[in-house]
Amino acid sequence: MNATVADLIAKHRPTLDAALGAIRSREYYTRFPDSPKAYPAQAQDEALAEFQARRGRLWSWGQTGADGTKVGGERSPYGFDLEYTYDHMDPDVLLPAMGAAIPAWRDAGAEARAAVCIEILTRLNARTYAMAFAAMHTTGQAFMMAFQAAGPNAQDRGLEAVAYGFSALNAHPDRAVWEKPGKGEPVRLAKKWVAAPRGIALVVGCNTFPTWNGYPGLFASLVTGNAVVVKPHPRAVAPLALTVETAREVLAEAGFDADLVALAPEAEGEPLAKTLALRPEVRIVDFTGSNEFGDWLEQNARQAQVYTEKAGINTVIVDSFRAEEYPAALGHLAFSLSLYTAQMCTSPQNLLVPRDGIRVGDEVKSPEEFAADLGKAMDRLLGDDARANAILGAVVNPFVLDRLERAAEVGKTVLASRAVPHPEFPDATVRTPLIAAVDAMDAEVYTHEWFGPISFVITTDSTLDSIAVYRDTVKAHGALTAAVYSTSEDVLDAAEEATWEAGANLSINLTGPVYVNQSAAFSDYHGTGANPAANATYADHAFVAGRFRFIQSRRPA
Amino acid sequence: MNATVADLIAKHRPTLDAALGAIRSREYYTRFPDSPKAYPAQAQDEALAEFQARRGRLWSWGQTGADGTKVGGERSPYGFDLEYTYDHMDPDVLLPAMGAAIPAWRDAGAEARAAVCIEILTRLNARTYAMAFAAMHTTGQAFMMAFQAAGPNAQDRGLEAVAYGFSALNAHPDRAVWEKPGKGEPVRLAKKWVAAPRGIALVVGCNTFPTWNGYPGLFASLVTGNAVVVKPHPRAVAPLALTVETAREVLAEAGFDADLVALAPEAEGEPLAKTLALRPEVRIVDFTGSNEFGDWLEQNARQAQVYTEKAGINTVIVDSFRAEEYPAALGHLAFSLSLYTAQMCTSPQNLLVPRDGIRVGDEVKSPEEFAADLGKAMDRLLGDDARANAILGAVVNPFVLDRLERAAEVGKTVLASRAVPHPEFPDATVRTPLIAAVDAMDAEVYTHEWFGPISFVITTDSTLDSIAVYRDTVKAHGALTAAVYSTSEDVLDAAEEATWEAGANLSINLTGPVYVNQSAAFSDYHGTGANPAANATYADHAFVAGRFRFIQSRRPA
Repeated sequence: MNATVADLIAKHRPTLDAALGAIRSREYYTRFPDSPKAYPAQAQDEALAEFQARRGRLWSWGQTGADGTKVGGERSPYGFDLEYTYDHMDPDVLLPAMGAAIPAWRDAGAEARAAVCIEILTRLNARTYAMAFAAMHTTGQAFMMAFQAAGPNAQDRGLEAVAYGFSALNAHPDRAVWEKPGKGEPVRLAKKWVAAPRGIALVVGCNTFPTWNGYPGLFASLVTGNAVVVKPHPRAVAPLALTVETAREVLAEAGFDADLVALAPEAEGEPLAKTLALRPEVRIVDFTGSNEFGDWLEQNARQAQVYTEKAGINTVIVDSFRAEEYPAALGHLAFSLSLYTAQMCTSPQNLLVPRDGIRVGDEVKSPEEFAADLGKAMDRLLGDDARANAILGAVVNPFVLDRLERAAEVGKTVLASRAVPHPEFPDATVRTPLIAAVDAMDAEVYTHEWFGPISFVITTDSTLDSIAVYRDTVKAHGALTAAVYSTSEDVLDAAEEATWEAGANLSINLTGPVYVNQSAAFSDYHGTGANPAANATYADHAFVAGRFRFIQSRRPA
Repeated sequence: MNATVADLIAKHRPTLDAALGAIRSREYYTRFPDSPKAYPAQAQDEALAEFQARRGRLWSWGQTGADGTKVGGERSPYGFDLEYTYDHMDPDVLLPAMGAAIPAWRDAGAEARAAVCIEILTRLNARTYAMAFAAMHTTGQAFMMAFQAAGPNAQDRGLEAVAYGFSALNAHPDRAVWEKPGKGEPVRLAKKWVAAPRGIALVVGCNTFPTWNGYPGLFASLVTGNAVVVKPHPRAVAPLALTVETAREVLAEAGFDADLVALAPEAEGEPLAKTLALRPEVRIVDFTGSNEFGDWLEQNARQAQVYTEKAGINTVIVDSFRAEEYPAALGHLAFSLSLYTAQMCTSPQNLLVPRDGIRVGDEVKSPEEFAADLGKAMDRLLGDDARANAILGAVVNPFVLDRLERAAEVGKTVLASRAVPHPEFPDATVRTPLIAAVDAMDAEVYTHEWFGPISFVITTDSTLDSIAVYRDTVKAHGALTAAVYSTSEDVLDAAEEATWEAGANLSINLTGPVYVNQSAAFSDYHGTGANPAANATYADHAFVAGRFRFIQSRRPA
């Protein structure tokens, strides 16, 4: 082990131990603070200058396999071209180089790899403001959300994956003497185990949360000894370019081959994710995105372990409220439906309300009254353009706008979407959510995901019926999150029982500063792998255990 | 929790803790002794009487879903019909009943399920002699091997799976309070996690080791909260019928629905494994058997997690011996090639010998001389018919005989197979192994499995070439085991490095009472999941972690 690696282990072992403790308790833990106050004040301006300076220039680090062509074309949802370009890769050169880098990385052992991974995360943390600008202008997130979600929250998710990987790698010692008692001398065998990585791991990045959704797979694969090729979404390359650049710096400094982590951006119209996913060297795929491509990967990338996080129909069961909590709950729901223009895979979509109405204190509110109250709460939340911009961010791509147009034709529009002008970026595309009212019989409307700021108030026959609709639609079509509002413990119990079957993560009676859309690393699971919305979760042992294999040798001792 | 379950926990918690300790140390541990001396002397005669008494009668326990038809037709490889019959099932009745049994089993919790599983194993242990006769007369194993492999060794593998499952289920507490510090009051959420099973697990039994290969999946699924339907191989129903009968007794006594474990034997010509594997309720499949069906399952049972143990080409690299160890090594290899007529998925097939010969002390032996020496060792081992019968057992099915006939036409026969008469069972089919010599260029001969007593002495260009052939053929075609004989640490290092890439489990210079074919529960992995011979191993966290999912609910605390 070289001095750098030894230093990194000494530096990061306390963090690793704290993270290991957190995944075992699942109590509150964070390594990377998400308050801007925790970061140097001048960092924001420096990062903005860096962001601007990169425009019009090639962002390159001499990666093995660069084929001389350049790719680019990112456009900010705030209305301007990024003018970033990147090296395009030849997989026939890149992948063999990555494969050749693996044995030394494998032989370094779990603790060294964990320390290198944590150093990468720590360096990424120091570049959080740079990441915030890169994320804001690729995903459309408002600045503060981009700062938190693409920065420290993603870094925490990465650290969580490192902890799970390290935990799995350390299931037992790497040597043991097996001594079987017998009549005379015992039989003794000296046994040795090597945690052999599967090979090259492919991370297919998404448009909306390239780092938050990318880091769990990236760091789970890396800590378990694999090399990782990152194929970013063509609209969100910069955040992962920053990530790969940082990872390669750290790897090289620690004496490893920088090609253990590589960026492979695609040319326009190039089906690079498919090409890479079917390469025999690619033995792991992590994907976040559409059901269509996720299902394709699961069906076709048979040489690989495939971890997918796809789409679902996140559901809210609305049953009853204490009178004094109703306004807060409405405001809370309005925020959940508005945050990042509901372009989160965790944003609620289907709100199930019983036909005979919901109880609010001593009152009963009809589904129409509830929908109207929610619409008013939305207007209050988003009435001020500055606040609306800070919450909504920008529309990430034109498909969301198309969907908004189509949604205006569905059911009865309870709340129409409006365009919000942005004072700083006049060409930004900012929209408020649309809410439509439909009946539980209109299943063809609400049993697929309407990704974006579209939700449905769905009239059901009763709360029991709501729970059945929730259970059955989520089992069939998937969901990452669910919520229930009720003052009845019986209803909550029934909602929980349905949840264990439907396999969503349930939030109960939330009115405070944690939203159903949000999951905290080290404590909240993101996805469950138990319904069609995802076949994996961030993070648990199932997410890491298949990324390597214990291989054994034994000999007489 | 009822009193029976509480008693079982009190009774079996020490065993569980010992097993948990063993999987963490991977040192020697066994719960179920495999010496007949550890069992009551009269048990053998009683078990034989039971075995005979069952002939000609229906073996039934009133399982839900019995459709009134009976299936049977097992024939002992020792030359007589078993005359056992079993209830045939209607999946449309059986599977819903099994599904309905799951929630109470899930809610019982990990410790209760582990205790019930260990009680099942303990009861099976008490019926080891009965299992021995059932296994002998379905698999063809000699009596002592059937006793050990189908009895205590299988029970230990089952306990190992229970320990891994329990360990995975206990990754963290089932409740936690998450408290995020803030400016004022901290945000507090009470979180709850339920380990939700995937659903119904299907175990597809094999002909040769129905319990040893069946128990890991059966108990891994059961302890993680699933129901398990066992589809036995039509030639080896009895060992799994005994298993299911015992499991159902224990489940019912402990207050659970007996339908949590069910037997589904197939009618002649009925593709029941395929039918069950594609049922939407079946969410886990464990399979041991042919590449053809294993690959089919992996490709088609997409609604399920599929764990397969298929075929491979187990390889021995022969490089050099100390003179005084050579005779013992030859005798050892001869035994490995003969045990249970090499009808083990772990039996060696390909022996790689360098063209210029192997060093034995100061001598050099040509490949031909090595092959002749091995042939002589085989003759010594099997020259006495009584000993030959005790080692070989009987040929499990006619396909093995067909293969032996075809093998006689391949390469140069170094050692011909002969029929061995059996004093007790005149119609038993007993054969000694065949060894053929081929060249490394004859890859079409040795790059697929010749299941049964067929092996090849393959001449390579050098030991380095042998290692390359080993690595490349095993990466491409799979292997469960590998062995190397060498006095050179450099050769052993190179063989190990090739092993980490090829993903087989390597035995080095074995000459004693542990054979390359054998893997000890709690210490040796069986299969790696790292090459085409298997996508899973007995057992590790990857084998259990995907059999359940943590599902979460959270609410303000």
